[in-house]
Amino acid sequence: MYFEDYHIGQTFSVKPISLSAEEIIAFAEPYDPRPFHLSEEAAQKTRFKGLIASGFHTLTAAWSAWVKSDINKDGTICGIGIDHLRWTAPVYAGDTLQSQLTIIAKKASASGHSGTITCLYETQNQHHEKVLSFEGLVLVACRPC
Amino acid sequence: MYFEDYHIGQTFSVKPISLSAEEIIAFAEPYDPRPFHLSEEAAQKTRFKGLIASGFHTLTAAWSAWVKSDINKDGTICGIGIDHLRWTAPVYAGDTLQSQLTIIAKKASASGHSGTITCLYETQNQHHEKVLSFEGLVLVACRPC
Repeated sequence: MYFEDYHIGQTFSVKPISLSAEEIIAFAEPYDPRPFHLSEEAAQKTRFKGLIASGFHTLTAAWSAWVKSDINKDGTICGIGIDHLRWTAPVYAGDTLQSQLTIIAKKASASGHSGTITCLYETQNQHHEKVLSFEGLVLVACRPC
Repeated sequence: MYFEDYHIGQTFSVKPISLSAEEIIAFAEPYDPRPFHLSEEAAQKTRFKGLIASGFHTLTAAWSAWVKSDINKDGTICGIGIDHLRWTAPVYAGDTLQSQLTIIAKKASASGHSGTITCLYETQNQHHEKVLSFEGLVLVACRPC
């Protein structure tokens, strides 16, 4: 989709994702080596009582469902920023995460060739608990002539 | 460090990091498969003229320097959120990224056992260009009796 195709209030659901214990540990080892991200046994002894994904892993993986979607083909240039991100519930190995994207703002660039869209990205687990929400700012190209 | 040890205005520098082409590609393949994150050859043909890290990779790796630091030992419970994140320059393979953390707010929890610190996290490359900045909210335990 190109900049012209986005409208405030549009919503999109993306493909659900799930993180395995192996993926959680492989992400955490180099980037977020805390006991509750590294082994089920160590995690059982923490306040979370089980292996949970690094918040950065949940963020990256939830967003990846949008990156890989058809919505995101062609027009997207690159991410610019994130506002108001909150991790609101732990993500356990095997949880099913469903994300929804709502366009909440758009602004044309001075060049006239692109614009910034702001989307509210909300991710829920299989118990309908919100695990993550944030506003993403993305630079999107205008439709070529 | 525990909640009591943090003071508004404190700054900390963490160990510099660098992302290799192999690490950039390994991160991007499952999470952010765009041409400029996947191969040097494909990236040469894009506006970036070279392989660049996914913004989520830069964020996660820059923050990991703090996670692994002595500052972060003992007291840190978990991340709560991120505000005002902006990716301000591309990160190329082999760039040296130096991050600085400044405590800009702190608030005790109602329980009296922990509190939230807000830190401004700023990351520069070897040319002293800011590549990333954000405010991180972290839940930190109070010092045990």
